[in-house]
Amino acid sequence: MALIGKEVQPFQAKAFKDGEDFIDVTEENFKGQWSVVCFYPADFSFVCPTELEDLQNNYETLKELGVEVYSVSTDTHFVHKGWHDSSEKINKIKYPMIGDPSQQLSRQFDVLNEEDGLAERGTFVIDPDGVIQTVEINAGGIGRDADNLVGKIKAAQYVRNNPGEVCPAKWEEGEETLTPSLDLVGKI
Amino acid sequence: MALIGKEVQPFQAKAFKDGEDFIDVTEENFKGQWSVVCFYPADFSFVCPTELEDLQNNYETLKELGVEVYSVSTDTHFVHKGWHDSSEKINKIKYPMIGDPSQQLSRQFDVLNEEDGLAERGTFVIDPDGVIQTVEINAGGIGRDADNLVGKIKAAQYVRNNPGEVCPAKWEEGEETLTPSLDLVGKI
Amino acid sequence: MALIGKEVQPFQAKAFKDGEDFIDVTEENFKGQWSVVCFYPADFSFVCPTELEDLQNNYETLKELGVEVYSVSTDTHFVHKGWHDSSEKINKIKYPMIGDPSQQLSRQFDVLNEEDGLAERGTFVIDPDGVIQTVEINAGGIGRDADNLVGKIKAAQYVRNNPGEVCPAKWEEGEETLTPSLDLVGKI
Amino acid sequence: MALIGKEVQPFQAKAFKDGEDFIDVTEENFKGQWSVVCFYPADFSFVCPTELEDLQNNYETLKELGVEVYSVSTDTHFVHKGWHDSSEKINKIKYPMIGDPSQQLSRQFDVLNEEDGLAERGTFVIDPDGVIQTVEINAGGIGRDADNLVGKIKAAQYVRNNPGEVCPAKWEEGEETLTPSLDLVGKI
Amino acid sequence: MALIGKEVQPFQAKAFKDGEDFIDVTEENFKGQWSVVCFYPADFSFVCPTELEDLQNNYETLKELGVEVYSVSTDTHFVHKGWHDSSEKINKIKYPMIGDPSQQLSRQFDVLNEEDGLAERGTFVIDPDGVIQTVEINAGGIGRDADNLVGKIKAAQYVRNNPGEVCPAKWEEGEETLTPSLDLVGKI
Amino acid sequence: MALIGKEVQPFQAKAFKDGEDFIDVTEENFKGQWSVVCFYPADFSFVCPTELEDLQNNYETLKELGVEVYSVSTDTHFVHKGWHDSSEKINKIKYPMIGDPSQQLSRQFDVLNEEDGLAERGTFVIDPDGVIQTVEINAGGIGRDADNLVGKIKAAQYVRNNPGEVCPAKWEEGEETLTPSLDLVGKI
Amino acid sequence: MALIGKEVQPFQAKAFKDGEDFIDVTEENFKGQWSVVCFYPADFSFVCPTELEDLQNNYETLKELGVEVYSVSTDTHFVHKGWHDSSEKINKIKYPMIGDPSQQLSRQFDVLNEEDGLAERGTFVIDPDGVIQTVEINAGGIGRDADNLVGKIKAAQYVRNNPGEVCPAKWEEGEETLTPSLDLVGKI
Amino acid sequence: MALIGKEVQPFQAKAFKDGEDFIDVTEENFKGQWSVVCFYPADFSFVCPTELEDLQNNYETLKELGVEVYSVSTDTHFVHKGWHDSSEKINKIKYPMIGDPSQQLSRQFDVLNEEDGLAERGTFVIDPDGVIQTVEINAGGIGRDADNLVGKIKAAQYVRNNPGEVCPAKWEEGEETLTPSLDLVGKI
Amino acid sequence: MALIGKEVQPFQAKAFKDGEDFIDVTEENFKGQWSVVCFYPADFSFVCPTELEDLQNNYETLKELGVEVYSVSTDTHFVHKGWHDSSEKINKIKYPMIGDPSQQLSRQFDVLNEEDGLAERGTFVIDPDGVIQTVEINAGGIGRDADNLVGKIKAAQYVRNNPGEVCPAKWEEGEETLTPSLDLVGKI
Amino acid sequence: MALIGKEVQPFQAKAFKDGEDFIDVTEENFKGQWSVVCFYPADFSFVCPTELEDLQNNYETLKELGVEVYSVSTDTHFVHKGWHDSSEKINKIKYPMIGDPSQQLSRQFDVLNEEDGLAERGTFVIDPDGVIQTVEINAGGIGRDADNLVGKIKAAQYVRNNPGEVCPAKWEEGEETLTPSLDLVGKI
Repeated sequence: MALIGKEVQPFQAKAFKDGEDFIDVTEENFKGQWSVVCFYPADFSFVCPTELEDLQNNYETLKELGVEVYSVSTDTHFVHKGWHDSSEKINKIKYPMIGDPSQQLSRQFDVLNEEDGLAERGTFVIDPDGVIQTVEINAGGIGRDADNLVGKIKAAQYVRNNPGEVCPAKWEEGEETLTPSLDLVGKI
Repeated sequence: MALIGKEVQPFQAKAFKDGEDFIDVTEENFKGQWSVVCFYPADFSFVCPTELEDLQNNYETLKELGVEVYSVSTDTHFVHKGWHDSSEKINKIKYPMIGDPSQQLSRQFDVLNEEDGLAERGTFVIDPDGVIQTVEINAGGIGRDADNLVGKIKAAQYVRNNPGEVCPAKWEEGEETLTPSLDLVGKI
Repeated sequence: MALIGKEVQPFQAKAFKDGEDFIDVTEENFKGQWSVVCFYPADFSFVCPTELEDLQNNYETLKELGVEVYSVSTDTHFVHKGWHDSSEKINKIKYPMIGDPSQQLSRQFDVLNEEDGLAERGTFVIDPDGVIQTVEINAGGIGRDADNLVGKIKAAQYVRNNPGEVCPAKWEEGEETLTPSLDLVGKI
Repeated sequence: MALIGKEVQPFQAKAFKDGEDFIDVTEENFKGQWSVVCFYPADFSFVCPTELEDLQNNYETLKELGVEVYSVSTDTHFVHKGWHDSSEKINKIKYPMIGDPSQQLSRQFDVLNEEDGLAERGTFVIDPDGVIQTVEINAGGIGRDADNLVGKIKAAQYVRNNPGEVCPAKWEEGEETLTPSLDLVGKI
Repeated sequence: MALIGKEVQPFQAKAFKDGEDFIDVTEENFKGQWSVVCFYPADFSFVCPTELEDLQNNYETLKELGVEVYSVSTDTHFVHKGWHDSSEKINKIKYPMIGDPSQQLSRQFDVLNEEDGLAERGTFVIDPDGVIQTVEINAGGIGRDADNLVGKIKAAQYVRNNPGEVCPAKWEEGEETLTPSLDLVGKI
Repeated sequence: MALIGKEVQPFQAKAFKDGEDFIDVTEENFKGQWSVVCFYPADFSFVCPTELEDLQNNYETLKELGVEVYSVSTDTHFVHKGWHDSSEKINKIKYPMIGDPSQQLSRQFDVLNEEDGLAERGTFVIDPDGVIQTVEINAGGIGRDADNLVGKIKAAQYVRNNPGEVCPAKWEEGEETLTPSLDLVGKI
Repeated sequence: MALIGKEVQPFQAKAFKDGEDFIDVTEENFKGQWSVVCFYPADFSFVCPTELEDLQNNYETLKELGVEVYSVSTDTHFVHKGWHDSSEKINKIKYPMIGDPSQQLSRQFDVLNEEDGLAERGTFVIDPDGVIQTVEINAGGIGRDADNLVGKIKAAQYVRNNPGEVCPAKWEEGEETLTPSLDLVGKI
Repeated sequence: MALIGKEVQPFQAKAFKDGEDFIDVTEENFKGQWSVVCFYPADFSFVCPTELEDLQNNYETLKELGVEVYSVSTDTHFVHKGWHDSSEKINKIKYPMIGDPSQQLSRQFDVLNEEDGLAERGTFVIDPDGVIQTVEINAGGIGRDADNLVGKIKAAQYVRNNPGEVCPAKWEEGEETLTPSLDLVGKI
Repeated sequence: MALIGKEVQPFQAKAFKDGEDFIDVTEENFKGQWSVVCFYPADFSFVCPTELEDLQNNYETLKELGVEVYSVSTDTHFVHKGWHDSSEKINKIKYPMIGDPSQQLSRQFDVLNEEDGLAERGTFVIDPDGVIQTVEINAGGIGRDADNLVGKIKAAQYVRNNPGEVCPAKWEEGEETLTPSLDLVGKI
Repeated sequence: MALIGKEVQPFQAKAFKDGEDFIDVTEENFKGQWSVVCFYPADFSFVCPTELEDLQNNYETLKELGVEVYSVSTDTHFVHKGWHDSSEKINKIKYPMIGDPSQQLSRQFDVLNEEDGLAERGTFVIDPDGVIQTVEINAGGIGRDADNLVGKIKAAQYVRNNPGEVCPAKWEEGEETLTPSLDLVGKI
């Protein structure tokens, strides 16, 4: 079944958060605010740093939108700290980096590659009810664009705040949206 | 299991294609060229037209990239023709519109909402081996942006054509990419 | 088991009804009045419009007999509206057109063709207890005659109103009927 | 699954046929010619005689259309003869009356009422490939009209002989039919 | 397991009884009096009439012994009436003729021939507790003798009324019976 | 399923036969001649001796009819000899007395009382094909009459030798029988 | 699992006891006194009489030791009486002879030969708690010696009455026994 | 099922045999000669030594009868040697002492006490076909008498060598035996 | 699953303890003090004595550390005593030697070789909560060193007494240990 | 079942090896030479570095003994490189560090903690046939001593090269070993 509309199920994980050392993360962290969960295969490997850095560059914007960001790999929180200490790009990261060595989160979000035990590169937007609103997963080597993510979150927030309106593709904040009505059927 | 890396399984469907009336589509259509498969819930309903129109506006660009586009809903190919005749926006569409009333394609791509029998709004990029390379699924009301899709396809094509290089996030055509090497570990 | 004598089971559907836009239909709509449920394969396809038009032409007569009419296909209610707007014949239809994209009604009335996800062309008369009284199903291409349907409903209503009498074949309203009695055994 | 399109499965039965005494009937009798199979609950009971008589009155017409007629109840062929000898109306019947005390035919055509062991009143038109083309089943007390049956058979034969044309509802022999084409979609 | 000693299980049936038209029969009819249940294959068929007539000839005697008689076939009660009207021999029958088209009684008494849906020719004596006391079943063509049945019932009644005595083979009313005692072991 | 028409299944048993000591009996003994198999509960117990003696008194008659007789209890063949030596009545018996301590025969003929391990008092007539033709089982205390058995065997032999004729109830050797024909239906 | 140490499970049986005719025996008979249960294959067969006679010859001795004796075969209690009447040796027997035609006791003591339905020749000593203390089973033809049995019972009684002492092999009443102690380990 | 008549199944074990150190024993050792297998719970424990010593005292006699003797406990062959070295009584033992730490032999002979992992004290006589002829099992504390064992073996050998004769209880070598014949039935 | 961290499950065993004869040992013995459990294959066999002697030589040291020592083999406690009496080395042993003939302890600690019924040579350190802290298992022939064991126990005790500190490899009593802190990550 | 004596099953893994970058490791690497496999929970965490460093310090000695060393954690080979680059102690390591993110090796060696997805701290010695010879697993916080490991390997190699000899506990290279013989039983 599609992940869209599913509520995040209970889990327990440790995360590395700069300035707070190691913290606990559960499904409760996804309740009461918007969240972005960004899976990637492996610390100390390729591409990922630029994606995670890109996410950090948008972190302030996302925070202003009331969105918390979590990165997740099947590495441990110890390794996240090790990587944070080693890599100039990763060192900038302020959002919590979840360690999922037990693979339970990766399995729940259907991104675990059972063969190599690593997560596919999936990004999920979760609403304040802990319900998944968007899914984006790319094969290895294809980067994700955080700008586009910000747009999707704004659209998702608009839809949530304005029930009964619909936004067309490529909608950007401030643009006119549509209110579904019988007259629109077959006209738009 | 994640859909990324899965080969499209056999199926049979009818599509409406402007200028060719009704055509047959099978998994063979996804072999030998790049494909975009764009699911949406229902003809004659909201938002979808603008997304499909947006896709049509990028159709020439995608064609030049060697990409065929398919839209899919659980409506029949008859309904696709009826909608094409009725809607100004849909009337512009040149790419094949697949009818999936038997729900087999929607189920295969894991976007079927069993409760209402409609497809979630998922977009998939498939490589010339018929293997899924990217997945993007949004909850109802959140539009998809075809521009961003073009970028992802270019990245996917670059990765396929340049095995051994990796592209960072937000990579755009012509930018420098990275070649994975041991030295990059922990440095990027 | 034969469908005759079975009570319609719970379901939920949306219908397009001219002048009322979109309405909800459940098994409760089949309680307290006579109903005709007319399945057909697909909007915007062949033959069906003439059958549905024929049904519309008899709608007043059926209304006078206390009968509501419902057409059903596995298309959505959006598509029903789209077709209603496009087709001159369908545009005349006043009775509710049920959308069954989840296929639950078609499956319940045993007319779903699992292979193509479309309904066979079946007509059902349901009594005010929600119990199926007559079944008629034709292969593709063989039309149904609404006149004959009216006759069957009159017979069914007569039988219901006159328990203990039986009507011979080809009975028409006003003709003499038979009251079952031991003396009739082997004599008629 | 709908009975429409299903081939009659193997069975063995005895029938009473006036002038030939008792004969064997199998699924082979339904191959190579059109057939009407008319189930009814019980010999020596009510309504049925008038229906069977009505069928006999149309027997010559049906024969001219290349159609054989079979009546079936779960009574034995002995009882059919006994009834034929006793009832003036049944005595006129020339077509084979199948005895189905083992209930295998009634079960195969989905008309067996398991509770009382009797068949519902169903009429089936079977094409020369032994495939069911039309189903009509009425609750007890509602008679069937053989005239209407003749019309349905003519339509079925026309469709078989003119593949690619479709007949509208209420079509009568000699009327113009429609050939499906893309242009007709949404226009008829 | 042997049927001897088994209590008749719940059932519901209709019977034709001369002078009372159609009556209901259940397992309760077998409580409080002795009963004979006589199965036969088919109305309007061979042999059976003479057996049933023979039973009728002994009906007065059996009534005087406090025994009710029931004949049973898988024909309906309608057919029993039809046969009663047609056949000179059957016309004499005063005892209830049970119709078992649902085959539940024939199955319960283990006399149903599943292949042809008819009952084997079995006769059962049931005591006032509804418990089977004697079983006699003959292949087709071998008649049963009601005189012998009367003898068996008398013996069964004697045994019931004189617990602790045993009757030798061929015992006839009034003859001396034996009381089981240790001395008889190996002596009789 | 009814035992009538079932072929005796393979078994192995020892029997006591006066003048031949102990002999083996298998299902093969029931092929090529008529057989009577007479079950009874227990040697050295009540009633049984008179029944077995009655059978012996008819043994010559049965032999002349080509019938072999077997008595069976779940006692051993040793006990049969012991009883034969002790009891004046049993001492007269010339037919084989089968020992069935393994209970396989009693189980096969459906007369085993599982609770006490003894056989019900059942008599079976088996034709030269080893197929059961008649069943008679009485509750404890009700004797069986060998005269009546002779009559049933004669009827069974007549039916076998005159296929196509049927004998009415109470038929006795030499009486006229009936040949089934369509004309008899509903007339006898 | 070994039978040693198992408590006799509930059962119901009839036994022949000289002077008391037929009596009931249950597992309760094995509580409160010592018992010997002696299975043998069949009454009126070979060897057994001498064994049973030998047991009778020791009956007084056993009685004095507080031991009741039971013989058991799968023959009925009727047969036991018959044999008692016929055989000079068996006629002497005073102990109860259990009939086990339902085979429940033979099965419980693991001596039933399923193939022929007879008991193997097993002797069991049961203590006043109904718990099996010794097992001895011999193939057909090898007799059992009651003298030796008496010895074993005396040993068993001594062990029960003198907990903490052990008797060496071939121990006879009055001989010195051993008291287990650590010092004996590896010394005796 | 009773062990009597069962052939010893394949097994592999090590035994200590004085003068030959450690040897292998399999089911093949039980073919071609008579064997006694004597289980006991534990080396270095109580009673057992006297039993094993008693067996040794009869070893010569048994050898002369063509009988090999095996003792078995769930101890290892190492422990058997250790015990042999330590205990004066055990030191005399010349027959093989099988170690059964894997418990496979004890389980096969149905003497394993699952709770404590030790063997009950069972003695088995096995004929030259490897088939168990006698079973004797005693609860802890009740010794076995090897003299009596010799008697049983002689009887078993006599029966094997003189098929068709039977020996009465308490038979001793040279005594007259019985030949089973019909005349003996009920006489001995 | 790894044994580390598992609590010892309930069991019952007998042990030989010099000076106390035979004692009972259960899982309760492992609560409230540290324990070493040392499995070995077999008494009276090779290598083992030297290992057990080595353990005895360290027994005082271990006692001082609050550690009780248990050796375990699948031999009985009787054999342990026998061996203790026979072997000069074993005779020195003061710690309890558990007998595990039922194999329950060996199975629980995952050291049972099912094929030969003997325990692999495993040593386990159990903390005062009855939880396994260290596992060491060697193939046959490779001895274990009790000195090293003492070191491991000291480390385990230190860890237990100083929660929050960690000891490096080869740590010896008194050496400096490490306290885990975020700063240590990636630095040690 | 104990791991001792089990052959390493097929697996595929990547390892970081200083000077060779990333290499493939399979079960074939464990054939033809001795191997040590050292599991630990997590890179960049506590204790482990000192253990791994200790192993490196003994690497030359082990190499001279023909032993290859592998460390394994459920971290990736990328992380191993990252750690190698960051940590002074780890930077010295020359042996291959296997990444087991798919957890297949940790599961195979029974050291996976399913709850947190990390490996327990187990060390295994594998002989040139790929068969596990020694197992040592410690709870978190208790370090392992590589010196002792060298001793065990020497013993294992001695045993392999000198089949038939056994080494006592605490054996050190050059010491006298024992040759198992019957005389040693109970003497050492």
